[in-house]
Amino acid sequence: MFESAELGHKIDKASYDRELPVLREQLLDVQYELLQSKAFPVIILIGGVDGAGRGETVNLLKAWMDPRHIETHAMGEPTDEEASRPDLWRFWRNLPPKGKIGIFFGSWYTQPILQRVFGEIKGAKLDMYSDQIVRFEQMLVAEGALILKFWMHLSKDFQKKRLKALEKDPKTRWRVSERDWLHYKLYDQFRETSERVLRQTSTGEAPWIVVEGVDEHYRSLRIGRIVAESIRRRLDEEKAGKRRSLAAVAPFIPAIDKLNVLEQLDYTQKLSGKVYSAELEELQGRLALLTRDPKFKKLAVACVFEGSDAAGKGGAIRRITGALDARQYDVIPVAAPTEEERAQPYLWRFWRHVPRKGRLTIFDRSWYGRVLVERVEGFCSEADWMRAYAEINDFEEQLSQSGVVVVKFWLAITKDEQQRRFEERQATPFKRFKITEEDWRNREKWDSYVAAVCDMVDRTSTEIAPWTLVAANDKMYARIKVLRTLCERIEAAMKVRRT
Amino acid sequence: MFESAELGHKIDKASYDRELPVLREQLLDVQYELLQSKAFPVIILIGGVDGAGRGETVNLLKAWMDPRHIETHAMGEPTDEEASRPDLWRFWRNLPPKGKIGIFFGSWYTQPILQRVFGEIKGAKLDMYSDQIVRFEQMLVAEGALILKFWMHLSKDFQKKRLKALEKDPKTRWRVSERDWLHYKLYDQFRETSERVLRQTSTGEAPWIVVEGVDEHYRSLRIGRIVAESIRRRLDEEKAGKRRSLAAVAPFIPAIDKLNVLEQLDYTQKLSGKVYSAELEELQGRLALLTRDPKFKKLAVACVFEGSDAAGKGGAIRRITGALDARQYDVIPVAAPTEEERAQPYLWRFWRHVPRKGRLTIFDRSWYGRVLVERVEGFCSEADWMRAYAEINDFEEQLSQSGVVVVKFWLAITKDEQQRRFEERQATPFKRFKITEEDWRNREKWDSYVAAVCDMVDRTSTEIAPWTLVAANDKMYARIKVLRTLCERIEAAMKVRRT
Repeated sequence: MFESAELGHKIDKASYDRELPVLREQLLDVQYELLQSKAFPVIILIGGVDGAGRGETVNLLKAWMDPRHIETHAMGEPTDEEASRPDLWRFWRNLPPKGKIGIFFGSWYTQPILQRVFGEIKGAKLDMYSDQIVRFEQMLVAEGALILKFWMHLSKDFQKKRLKALEKDPKTRWRVSERDWLHYKLYDQFRETSERVLRQTSTGEAPWIVVEGVDEHYRSLRIGRIVAESIRRRLDEEKAGKRRSLAAVAPFIPAIDKLNVLEQLDYTQKLSGKVYSAELEELQGRLALLTRDPKFKKLAVACVFEGSDAAGKGGAIRRITGALDARQYDVIPVAAPTEEERAQPYLWRFWRHVPRKGRLTIFDRSWYGRVLVERVEGFCSEADWMRAYAEINDFEEQLSQSGVVVVKFWLAITKDEQQRRFEERQATPFKRFKITEEDWRNREKWDSYVAAVCDMVDRTSTEIAPWTLVAANDKMYARIKVLRTLCERIEAAMKVRRT
Repeated sequence: MFESAELGHKIDKASYDRELPVLREQLLDVQYELLQSKAFPVIILIGGVDGAGRGETVNLLKAWMDPRHIETHAMGEPTDEEASRPDLWRFWRNLPPKGKIGIFFGSWYTQPILQRVFGEIKGAKLDMYSDQIVRFEQMLVAEGALILKFWMHLSKDFQKKRLKALEKDPKTRWRVSERDWLHYKLYDQFRETSERVLRQTSTGEAPWIVVEGVDEHYRSLRIGRIVAESIRRRLDEEKAGKRRSLAAVAPFIPAIDKLNVLEQLDYTQKLSGKVYSAELEELQGRLALLTRDPKFKKLAVACVFEGSDAAGKGGAIRRITGALDARQYDVIPVAAPTEEERAQPYLWRFWRHVPRKGRLTIFDRSWYGRVLVERVEGFCSEADWMRAYAEINDFEEQLSQSGVVVVKFWLAITKDEQQRRFEERQATPFKRFKITEEDWRNREKWDSYVAAVCDMVDRTSTEIAPWTLVAANDKMYARIKVLRTLCERIEAAMKVRRT
């Protein structure tokens, strides 16, 4: 993959000086058009070999464009807030919003490659990371991002020369550390590992662009041009309205016999008040102890509540929070996204609330809105919600891998029971605010919601994050089932040995 | 201050059970009205003696109200991201938006009190913190927040009894740590220090409410009622439109002789291209070395650019960033606030961008918008911008105390020069986007802006954060002056010994 980047590409100073003003004007031009259109975010990754001009390139890009609308992120060691969350959290929090350019100096590739070079992980694990990255970038692209991945390359001889030259000049000596020489000694492993990762992650949507780092004029002009032209092309596509034709999908067809996972539930299950009180006390006590157990500090919990309107999500959530230390949890009510959230991929607003170790986040409605309300109401395209299943599974896998227990409840009630509860709410002055015109409208789409729920369960109930379907016609039964499931999931997670 | 809280207040269980349902309904009622009106944020601080029921109270409040709209923040040890910024940064980032309730368990009072009790700071320093807190809370209240500060008190004897009782019960034993007993031994110092701080910080806008923690029923009902009634009263005030009559202020009267700091500048100062190039190179090199000096890791820089339209802020900023490592700085262009920012006090959106140690943030326009455009255009009331001077000075003092060098530039051009630049911009296709109708409109208010700028300089040019007024009719002269000032300020800060 590096062959073309070891040929000694060069551009003479005269050509460089002639071309530069044109390029800078182009860059500023596309930058302002992007900013005004707010059409998409641009994510630029700068990776590669030490001494190949990564830092200089980032500086140049910021000098050539308006630095006020470029966010640069030097991803060094994670902070402690970052270290206690899934690996990708720190990148999510730094994604540029639509209209802006974000440059990542060091990226989601850095840690996997270094870990492999230093022998901390095996090849299979590296391949798994590559695979995760491909899916992550696919999602970003599908959400509209333009991703430009530059790999700055130097041959081994040249790297040595470059480091020596930097060391010789008093002005640049500070830039060469022992770490750089250590990396140099590992050049061959680094090259082999990088090539493997680049090969696996160079996709049609987000290809790697390898740039020879020897000649400053060559590499600068080349990168500048690619940035300008890529943004230009995307802007033109957007204006022409011919943004990527998304893969056609086979429409889902509901089972013909009407048999489905929601119909299968036994809605007659009930608990007496007495049994309920006893079990509630026992389970709340159990949950209280579990979440105060020292082992819980290595875990976190993301608890998702979805369900029909009036299915009793709020009541179930309060039975959980009643057992928790108020300092330990957050409940996130999910409503319409804010302006800042709308300028980001749809999962961004949930990544914001991913719990740290030792904490619980309870989502009252969640990222599943994408495949429920957004699907049924047509708020997103078919292709968007179709791809969401896989994206959500990836998200939950990342949570799970980092020790977050993902517990998902669908509270199901029958159509008759919903009617009864709506009427009851309307008759009670204190509860009237809970029922709106929209609730009645949603009810008319009952069958579409049933189909969406069944698809959701089929496609996102996974070993690591199974759905628990709760027949909730009897509130007491439902609450106990929710509490018990939560306790069991936490207990199971505690048994797994964690480092 | 604690006399009434050592009387042995009690409420019997029967009264408690009778009153509780009414209280809970009130609480839910005000909470939903608050949520729907989005009228103001409610900030509840829970402080006090160990074992006085602080945790239980927070749990109860969340159980009684809808926990989905309450944010709880247990402010323990700062994370590393927090520790490398001013003390109040972690509270700013956690302020509840309008319509929500934020409970701080441990607050801006915790560290000063503990530091004093453990002898880490002197009384004078404690008083200084109290003073800072009073001004901080005044600002929050002026921005609309309702602040409720509860202090849970126990007499010394009772604290001992409580800790022993908790220790005896296997279910609560985990809650008593060695630290609690250590605190108990320091009870007298703790009481004395707390009383001093409570006395100094109990203000009309945000009084302390001391609650005896002995009887659970008493303290819970009391706090619940105060919360319900305070929110109720504020909601009613808002509805009646009779929100606090703000202190009348003497309107500023510009000096009669028209002599002012902007008129005083010598706009004829110029540099030749040759001198400019030489000085630019020298100063950029100096800045590059300064920001890469190991000593710089203990500092940070917040650089503010304000100035007339077309005064050359962007160009000056680029001359600075051209000398910096792209990974080390952010440029924040300040435009209209986002939805999330509008739900917070006006300084919130600048606190978000306060640089960590070792980093620079350059603000292209800033918090001074409050006393410039917002004042002149009438976007905020006279009382709002009048108080802003002191609030801004407090903000910059906090930055400065934590090692952030605050460097503020006003780029001044004459009215004729502005006219010339506007016309030039309109004639250049590439620069036309930089000039809008609004720029021409602002120009009509030239004199009002001059008055606002002069007041701003008089009131916010302080020893720790002086304004540098730059005559910018000659761009080259202005850029050199900016760069030189910045270098000198960083150099001066490096000479101060820091721990």
